[in-house]
Amino acid sequence: MLMTDLIAKKRDGGELSTEEIKYMIEGYVRGEIADYQMSAMCMAILFRGMSDQETLDLTMAMMHSGEVVDLSAIEGVKADKHSTGGVGDKTSLILCPMVAACGLRIAKMSGRGLGHTGGTLDKLESFPGYNISIGEKRFIENVNRCGIALIGQTADIVPADKKLYALRDVTGTVPSIPLIVSSIMSKKLASGADVIVLDVKCGSGAFMKTEEDARELARGLTRIGRLAGKKCAAVITDMDQPLGRAVGNALEVKEAISVLKGETKGDLLELCLTLGSCMLTEAGFCPDIESAREKLLATIESGAALDKLAELVEAQDGDKRAVYDTSLLPMAPVQLEAVSEVSGFLSHIECEKVGLISMHLGGGRATKESEIDLSVGLVLHKKVGDRVEQGESLGTIHATTREKAEEAARLLRACCTFSDEPVERPAFIKAIIR
Amino acid sequence: MLMTDLIAKKRDGGELSTEEIKYMIEGYVRGEIADYQMSAMCMAILFRGMSDQETLDLTMAMMHSGEVVDLSAIEGVKADKHSTGGVGDKTSLILCPMVAACGLRIAKMSGRGLGHTGGTLDKLESFPGYNISIGEKRFIENVNRCGIALIGQTADIVPADKKLYALRDVTGTVPSIPLIVSSIMSKKLASGADVIVLDVKCGSGAFMKTEEDARELARGLTRIGRLAGKKCAAVITDMDQPLGRAVGNALEVKEAISVLKGETKGDLLELCLTLGSCMLTEAGFCPDIESAREKLLATIESGAALDKLAELVEAQDGDKRAVYDTSLLPMAPVQLEAVSEVSGFLSHIECEKVGLISMHLGGGRATKESEIDLSVGLVLHKKVGDRVEQGESLGTIHATTREKAEEAARLLRACCTFSDEPVERPAFIKAIIR
Repeated sequence: MLMTDLIAKKRDGGELSTEEIKYMIEGYVRGEIADYQMSAMCMAILFRGMSDQETLDLTMAMMHSGEVVDLSAIEGVKADKHSTGGVGDKTSLILCPMVAACGLRIAKMSGRGLGHTGGTLDKLESFPGYNISIGEKRFIENVNRCGIALIGQTADIVPADKKLYALRDVTGTVPSIPLIVSSIMSKKLASGADVIVLDVKCGSGAFMKTEEDARELARGLTRIGRLAGKKCAAVITDMDQPLGRAVGNALEVKEAISVLKGETKGDLLELCLTLGSCMLTEAGFCPDIESAREKLLATIESGAALDKLAELVEAQDGDKRAVYDTSLLPMAPVQLEAVSEVSGFLSHIECEKVGLISMHLGGGRATKESEIDLSVGLVLHKKVGDRVEQGESLGTIHATTREKAEEAARLLRACCTFSDEPVERPAFIKAIIR
Repeated sequence: MLMTDLIAKKRDGGELSTEEIKYMIEGYVRGEIADYQMSAMCMAILFRGMSDQETLDLTMAMMHSGEVVDLSAIEGVKADKHSTGGVGDKTSLILCPMVAACGLRIAKMSGRGLGHTGGTLDKLESFPGYNISIGEKRFIENVNRCGIALIGQTADIVPADKKLYALRDVTGTVPSIPLIVSSIMSKKLASGADVIVLDVKCGSGAFMKTEEDARELARGLTRIGRLAGKKCAAVITDMDQPLGRAVGNALEVKEAISVLKGETKGDLLELCLTLGSCMLTEAGFCPDIESAREKLLATIESGAALDKLAELVEAQDGDKRAVYDTSLLPMAPVQLEAVSEVSGFLSHIECEKVGLISMHLGGGRATKESEIDLSVGLVLHKKVGDRVEQGESLGTIHATTREKAEEAARLLRACCTFSDEPVERPAFIKAIIR
């Protein structure tokens, strides 16, 4: 078998066999297939697409390039969730305790944040002492005992994706649905859950800018998940503005706790209920979405979801008192209101830029090696559609110095566009793909 | 400027600017742009195509990556010819002396053969003593004195093409019209001629398998040549069977001499008259194709073309007696007839395989470093459409040993397909593109 022939086959619209895809991925990981051949192949795939069988084969070949987590020692149905990445996305912190409180097992490996998007691991570390590296043995014990564990990805998951993504990033071959699907699903499948729910973001702050592209990706993800024998559903959600109001690690944890306490409603709760009800129905825990929503809402009303978060934090060496008393979470020394200089209806927030403000305040990583400050960030007081009067605050900046806070306030004002006419609030949940 | 952005631009159907193409080629030659980025770009170009302006910019950027030959010291109009490569193609050996005998200057740099296609330089070296490396000074002196010189390519012509072609060869990105056009035309333009005539082969023995593809390539080549300020024409010719009858270096020289003597007519002479008349009319030497053909035929009848070949050989240190007495050319020790085992009408010859027979006899190079035997090869006695009786010879094998000759005879028989019904002779000249 020759890689040159495989490239030509795909270039001419042919379908690669299971064998050929396996040869390609194994050879690439071993360094026997050159980057320049793989990048040409990725570009050919970008133009020609891949059949479901090819995408499945690619996903499985990538999954088998590294360690595959064995969760068979965990009793019961295991669920996992993936988000394609957004600004202010603290969903896991709310969703996971809620569904775990319903009895569904959460054995989840998360990532750190990079660039303008945050990561669940960083947020969890806002709880003093929280340990993301408890080892496989404790990970499984904890899930069996508490029904939930959230840790960092072990080192050897899907090395093919690490190598391939780095190549795609510099060769213009990122935006290919089968390549994105295999990248996401190989990691999800290697993580071992039975039920996978996907939050596919769309809009200016997301990778998929249009709803159509997001739908195509969502359909691809769920199809491949099901072909691989998993229960799967996807939710398409708006990322034209940050999710909820807080952007920044400890600030997002506070917002998540406020939702779990039943104090904050709105888009963020709605998303968690939607993803959670997909999980519970796919897992066979509830007959339909409506009854699943009831069950999830009950975990908030009873305090069971909040207690589950506290249990998680304690089981991973964290200080669970911070769950009940958020003043124990990291807090930035300077707070400053970003005051609006105009009046009008807020018509647009540049979502990605808001993420970058938080990053520049020290709350996000410019490179993988950056140290971050968990306390900084911002809390929006206005969202798209809201009426704003001149002198009203658009949001509170949490910073380490007054100077940084003033710069961030200036930037936040620049992210906002106003209209004299009333602006319709955008639909937040755009579709559920099952 | 970032190469990743240029790849994305081309991927999304955008047009690269002159500046961007220059940046890309200069960076690639300097090693600042990685192979894996260039191969992704080539694949994107293959799918998206290039405008005439982009193709011209690419051609010029490649041309300027190395030495550009200055032929201004040669008086008069200089003409050059390029063939896309075929089996038994000894056209230059006939065409160049003919047009030089008409007064058009031939200052030509040729290549060596590789794989199943032969090279003019190897053929010329069949003349004992012929020197392909006479240096630039003598090259120009010779053209001014004799009107003709045929030498090897100087080392520094279009290094960008050498690097890029090697990459395209292993990344499935060879069959892209703008990339082929820029590869061919950058070298032709760097060689400095005023008139460029292109022989675009099509059929089973050629790179372009269909007439449609060959026409597209021919139109691309002439368009870019004209945009670069050259006089240009292209001829599309059949390469479903070897050109003429001889395949192998000295054997082809003998056939060329026989055409120049007026002893052999047919496809080969027809091609030389067609290419030559395009050259003479493009150069303004003749008002139309018909008068140009007359002028060319007269060089055969008068013996002027044969004498011009002898003059060329002598001017480059070769033994010109071999032009008039071909027994002085290299001759293989073994001759064997490849006798047909069946009767019928010859309906198909596997052209590329005939080239490979000659290569395996020692007449062609498997790799650039291979040594070749100028004496070996084969001479076909039958061409497509001919009636063959059982026991008649399909062709004479010229080999170093009886064993090799027998193997070659067996292979030649396997290249021929017969029909019980009469077979139409294929049209040889398919189109003239001006």
